[in-house]
This record gives sequence, C-alpha cells and structure tokens, in this order.
Amino acid sequence: MGRRKAWLAGLMMMVLGAALPASARDEVRNVIFMIGDGMGPAYLTAYRYALAGEPGGAIAPTIFDQLLVGSASTYPMDDTFVTDSAAAATALATGVKSYNGAIGVDNNQVPLRSILEQARLLGKSTGVVTTSQVNHATPASFLANVKRRSLYDAIAEQYVHKRIADKTMLDLMFGGGERYFSRAPGGLALQLREMGWQQAWEMAELEQLERLPAMALMAEVALPHAIDSAHPDRLLRMTDKALALLSSQPNGFFLMVEGSQIDWCGHANDIRCALGEMADFAKAVERAKAFVEENPDTLLVITADHSTGGLTLGAGGTYQWLPGPILQVERTAGYIARKMLEAPESPVEAVWSRYASLPLSSQELAMLALARKAQLDGEGPYHLSSRIGQLVAKRSFTGWTTSGHTGEDVSVMAYGEGADTFIGFQDNADIARKIMSLLGEAQRP
Amino acid sequence: MGRRKAWLAGLMMMVLGAALPASARDEVRNVIFMIGDGMGPAYLTAYRYALAGEPGGAIAPTIFDQLLVGSASTYPMDDTFVTDSAAAATALATGVKSYNGAIGVDNNQVPLRSILEQARLLGKSTGVVTTSQVNHATPASFLANVKRRSLYDAIAEQYVHKRIADKTMLDLMFGGGERYFSRAPGGLALQLREMGWQQAWEMAELEQLERLPAMALMAEVALPHAIDSAHPDRLLRMTDKALALLSSQPNGFFLMVEGSQIDWCGHANDIRCALGEMADFAKAVERAKAFVEENPDTLLVITADHSTGGLTLGAGGTYQWLPGPILQVERTAGYIARKMLEAPESPVEAVWSRYASLPLSSQELAMLALARKAQLDGEGPYHLSSRIGQLVAKRSFTGWTTSGHTGEDVSVMAYGEGADTFIGFQDNADIARKIMSLLGEAQRP
Ligand SMILES: [Zn+2]
Ligand SMILES: [Zn+2]
Repeated sequence: MGRRKAWLAGLMMMVLGAALPASARDEVRNVIFMIGDGMGPAYLTAYRYALAGEPGGAIAPTIFDQLLVGSASTYPMDDTFVTDSAAAATALATGVKSYNGAIGVDNNQVPLRSILEQARLLGKSTGVVTTSQVNHATPASFLANVKRRSLYDAIAEQYVHKRIADKTMLDLMFGGGERYFSRAPGGLALQLREMGWQQAWEMAELEQLERLPAMALMAEVALPHAIDSAHPDRLLRMTDKALALLSSQPNGFFLMVEGSQIDWCGHANDIRCALGEMADFAKAVERAKAFVEENPDTLLVITADHSTGGLTLGAGGTYQWLPGPILQVERTAGYIARKMLEAPESPVEAVWSRYASLPLSSQELAMLALARKAQLDGEGPYHLSSRIGQLVAKRSFTGWTTSGHTGEDVSVMAYGEGADTFIGFQDNADIARKIMSLLGEAQRP
Repeated sequence: MGRRKAWLAGLMMMVLGAALPASARDEVRNVIFMIGDGMGPAYLTAYRYALAGEPGGAIAPTIFDQLLVGSASTYPMDDTFVTDSAAAATALATGVKSYNGAIGVDNNQVPLRSILEQARLLGKSTGVVTTSQVNHATPASFLANVKRRSLYDAIAEQYVHKRIADKTMLDLMFGGGERYFSRAPGGLALQLREMGWQQAWEMAELEQLERLPAMALMAEVALPHAIDSAHPDRLLRMTDKALALLSSQPNGFFLMVEGSQIDWCGHANDIRCALGEMADFAKAVERAKAFVEENPDTLLVITADHSTGGLTLGAGGTYQWLPGPILQVERTAGYIARKMLEAPESPVEAVWSRYASLPLSSQELAMLALARKAQLDGEGPYHLSSRIGQLVAKRSFTGWTTSGHTGEDVSVMAYGEGADTFIGFQDNADIARKIMSLLGEAQRP
C-alpha cells in the first residue's frame, strides 16, 4: 500500500513535469538505455516465476515488474513484421525505422544520427556496454552507419575514425570483440591507446580502469554465456564500472547497456541459458536503478528489441510451467553438449551429472547417447545441444516455436526523470524520439 | 504529437485525481469491465498487424494500443503457474486468488464477494454480457460460488435464487445458455419472466428489449464463432444494447463483458478464428470507450484472463508473419472441416474454395483429403479441423505450442475515471481490488 502511494506520488510529479513547458522541466542530465536483446514479455514472466521457484510459493515483483510502464511494437520498415536486431537497434538508436540488417542507416542507406551522437554533441560523455562483441548489431546502431550488420571490421573502424571525424567520439566501450580492435601496429586498439584510452583485456583489469576514455574487450568475440562463465555477473560488473567512471563527467552522460545473449539462448531454445542471462541483466538494471535514486536527474529506460524463439510458459496441452527442472541444470545446453562430445567414451550420464542435478530417465539418457553418436557421425553442429534444450523444455513444459525471432510487442520499463513519457503503448522508434526530445536539441558545431 | 499532449494532459488529471483523498476525487459511477478470454499479448499484436494487412504498409495503433496502461500476472493459487479461466475469473471478480476450477470461492471453497455483488449492494445496476453461455466460468465467477466450473446447473440456479437471497440480484444477462434456463414450468427462465424480466431468444429480439431486468439467451449453449455467425458483430450488438439499457439507471452500473471465444480459437490453434473474435471484441471495446467519453464518471478496464495456445508471430525459423493468407479464409477450421465431413463425396477443394480464397497446393489438398478420410475412418473429432488450422498456421508463419493455456502476463488497458490506478505491473487479483476500492465500501443491508 505504501509502495503504491509512493508510486502515485512519484508519478504525479513525473506527469506534472511532462505537462510543464520544457524550460520549466528538470533537465535530463544522464540517460541509461538498457536493451535486453530478444527479451520478449514471456522472458519477464519466466524470470519472475524462476525466482519464486516452485508454483504455490510467494511471488514477488521483479525489478522489471517494478519499472514496467508500457509496451512497444517492433516491426521493421521491411517486407516483414518480424524484426532482426539491426533494424530494431537502428529504430531504438535513431528514432527511424529501417530494413532488417541496417546499422544506423535508413531504408535508402542514408546515415542517421543516434541518441549517442546527439548526447555527445550536447557535451555529454557516452559509452556502450554489452556482453557480445562491442561492434555487434545493437551497440553498432548507436555508433556506426553501415548497410549490413555483418560488416564488423567496417563498424569497428567507424567507432574510431568516423566518430573522430564527426566530433562525436565515444568515451567508453566494454564487452567483447578484441578480434576487431587489434593491438598490433596500425590496429585500432593501438591507435586508441595512443589517444590516451585506458585499456582492459580481462575482468581483473576492468576493476583497475580509473578514468575515461576507457575500453575493456574481454573476449575475442562475445563473452561466454553467464552460466558458463567464471564471471556470471559480468554485465553487472561492467555496468557498475561504467556508471562509476561516467558519473564524474562534467555534463552528464548517455550509456547504452545491452544484455546481448538473452537472444542467443532464445535462438538455441535453451531456457536455462536464457534465465542465466536474465539474472545478470536484472542485476545490471538494479544497479542502474540505484544510480537513478542517487542521481534523480537521470532517465533509465529498459526495453527489448524483439522476442526470440517463440517462448511460452506451458506447452503440449499441460497447464504447467516448472522452473525447478530448469534450475537443476547449471550450464548451457551448448556447454554440456561440448563436454559430452569431447569425451565420447564417457557415459553421457557421467558428463550430465557434472553439470546438472536434474535426474534423467534411462530413456532420456539413451536419447542423449544416440544424439551424441549421430553428431559424431556427421549430424549438424547443434544436434546434441538442441536435444538437450528440448529435454529441459519438455521437463519444464517450456514452449518454443522457432529458432528465429517473433513479432510480438515488447515491454517498456522506465524510471527517473522523464519516465512518465513512456507510459502506454508506443512504437520502438518512438522510444528513441522521446529520449532525444528529453535530451534537447543538439546543433552540430 | 497532438495525441501525445492530449494523453499527457488527461494523464495529469487522472494522476491528480489518484493522489487526492478519496472524498475529493470524482466518483466512479459506472464500471465496464471487459475480459478477452485467452487474449494474451500476442493476440493484441496479431490483431494490429492483421488490420494493417501486408507488411510494409501503414500501421495504426488499435483500440487496445490506445488504452494500454500496463500488464498483469495471472498465476492461480495452485500447484501450477498456469491458470484456467475459472481461477483467473475468480481473481478478477473477487480480488482473491484461488485454485484452477474455482468459481467465486477461495482455496478452502469459501464463497467470496464479487465486484458485481459489491456494486449491487451500493445500489448500482449490474449485468453480464458474453459470447459463451452466460453461466460459463468468467461470468459465473461474478455471480456464483461453486467449487467446480463444470457445475453449470448449480451456477444457473445461483444466478437466480442465491442472488435473490443475498439481495444482489442482477439486472441483465446477454449471451448463450438457453439450455440452463428452461422456459418450461418450474424452469429458471419462466421464474424470471414471472419476476418481470424481459426476454429475448434470438438476435432480432435483442433489439426489442426496452427496460431492465432483461435477459437474452440466443443459443442453446455458446453463440456461434463470430466468423461462422450470421451476426459476426454479436458482442458489439449485445454490449451496445446493454449500455443503452444500463445508462438510464439511477445509481450507475457495473457491467462485465467477455469476449469468450478468443480462448476457444486459441485452444483449437485456429488463428483465423481468433482474429474474428478479436475484431468483434475490439468493436465492443470501441463502443464502451465511446460510452466513457459521453459519461466521464465511468471506468473502463480491459484485460485477459490468460493467454491460450502459446501463440507467436513467426515460427519455424522464418522472420515473417503474414496476415494475408489468414484473412483469405472466411470460416473457422472447425466449420470448414464439418462441411468437408458432411460431403465426403465432394472434392475437398470444392468445399475449401466455398469458404476460402487462399489457393492450396496439390500437396495441401491431398493432405486434407487424407485427413478427412482418416477422421471418417475413426480418427478423433478434431483431426481434420486441426490439420486445417496447421495449414493456415504454416502459410502465415503462426506459431502455437499447446492446446491449453500458457502463463505469460497479460496486458491491461484502462480509460476514464480512475484509469491511472492501473498503470504499470500488477497481479490479476489487484485489478479487482483496485476496482472495488474505486467503487467504495459497500455494507450488507
Ligand atoms: Zn537474434
Ligand atoms: Zn481456455
């Protein structure tokens, strides 16, 4: 009851702010924009019930529930209603819809200005944090303008030379992607070092960064999945460090934080993997919310770019969804499959029981042994891991309809200065336009 | 832009209202509570894109988009996170969660007071409108207290004798269910007639009802599916009539309107059927919204009890969802299957082309012919219709994961007096408690 009253009082202040002319409204000094890649609404529900454990127990609102204010459509400007991450990120970064594959360019491949560039032109510090390579589609749409998302080298190149040329150089990038930022002579990482960037190449070094500009590329390409990682809280740690470095900047900041791999677990139809990524993303959101509480001139917006996998809680006619069997698995299906394939002479049960306490029937074990043999005999590279994902889906009554994306609307969460602006239904491009409007007009110098 | 400003201005007024003490707040005189049975978030997105037609065209916010304010969890007080319609309706009707199957009783089978009863005790007129039998789970939870939803006769009996005994008699019921309200001597319908109820038994008679109390039972059990019906706008027509009759009541009213059969189409995994039900439900919502605009002391709340079928837009790895092929079908899969079975000597193509302009391949036609033969040879009663549903799902890239319900959160839409109260995330039982609180305390006489 107290919570609801506080929410209403806060909401009233937000709405009053929104209705006042811009000059009378408090300034949005900092923006933290968090994107759960692939994190459709079903993932938010799944995360809540996974925290609760067994059905029938106490269920508490998650950090996402606490901040939910609306939803957003995600369709691209293309011949399909189902977006990819590039078109969605372009809409979220620039306020303009484009075609699937587009990185910061419109349907005619004309470069678009992103929120990040606008913030930089306003004198703010800027950064991106991600668990994928830093030049993957979502961060790339804030920092590059290329016609295809697969042009990773061109994207990395633009992060440095195009940003310098446009006087919109960023100040911080944390994630993976060492491959694209070479430390060799002439390489991008060396150039950045010579320009004064502090650099970290592993998690232990991240803690030692003490000023901007700073970069941390802690994997060749993407970071490992949360639950396969020595640092399952890697997104939390990067977000925490980024906020610590950015908070001391004179004119505020724009920070984009992506939970990249929720999507990848969705593509693999691996619910355990997805819940692990959600947990890390949720902790990063909690950290960002705490920052807003200390710095009320900050806007925090959280959304997803699309949903992945066609996840449903309940499947095959049964009115049930059981997080228990899912949480008895401790590694991704891909990880466990790799371990089984690496030890073809070990019984699958021996490998399974090292990474999962979920008891398997003799039928299930025989199915896994057969799948391992089939893959060793030449079945595709995901044969065994997808069988493991299906096994866990079946035991938990988790439904999946696709290895790709789906077109349902995504949830929108917001908190802090200007959060009221996001109440209700909107298009994904509206989210960017609203943030841009709250930041205020930027003129090119 | 103008729309957003109007929304913000309206929101500010709503929020100011919410923050004021109850005495200073405008009274909620009328409540219209609309429930799309099974209408999970994916149905709302599907409906929007179906209105748009082909991908790439102009996309407009639907009536649901315009009114969206938040979402709700739906889990029952049971050993599962996936609710049935009875437990969900009990939560939505009474503010108390219960077990799957419960009608207006708590987990110990103790009767609960519903919003409808509360409204009646406050002197308001009350009614229910539904496309199922009027004593089906959702309306029943507002009007009866029984331990199992299948006790249809006991539920109908309570609609009359328990309501009279409790001095909470309702004033209006429109839908199906003639079977449960006999016109024979001693039957419930005859008793109601003797008590002064106006009665309609078909759509033409509905228009002639001119005062309360009034009932219209226009089918033996449920009304036909919208697209199979001579009256595809039957819910709109019933809602319109109900509002016309209730609006002249002295102390305001509580009206529950259910789009019952969205759920049934979901169970059948028949997307065409679902879009037909959505269209009729949407028109009824538009009618209710227009009523609120004329009567601003009215609260309109719209939600779903749960999602059905595990619907996803996109399936099988393809980044696409196509309403076109769906809308080229003009009847439900069940209807077309019946017609094919009734004419076993007709080529399936001849029957198909009477009810659908979607061209089928020779492979698809052969599959349907085989399925008809299998069903005539003793396969289950839904064999052919489910094959038709699958065919349309495949052509449109529609995903389904279950013949039952799923546990994802549902959307919450609200408009009018007190609508701000529903912004954000909430539990389904909270929705009822919020409505009850806006109506004000009712004392038993
Ligand atoms: Zn993806
Ligand atoms: Zn149902």
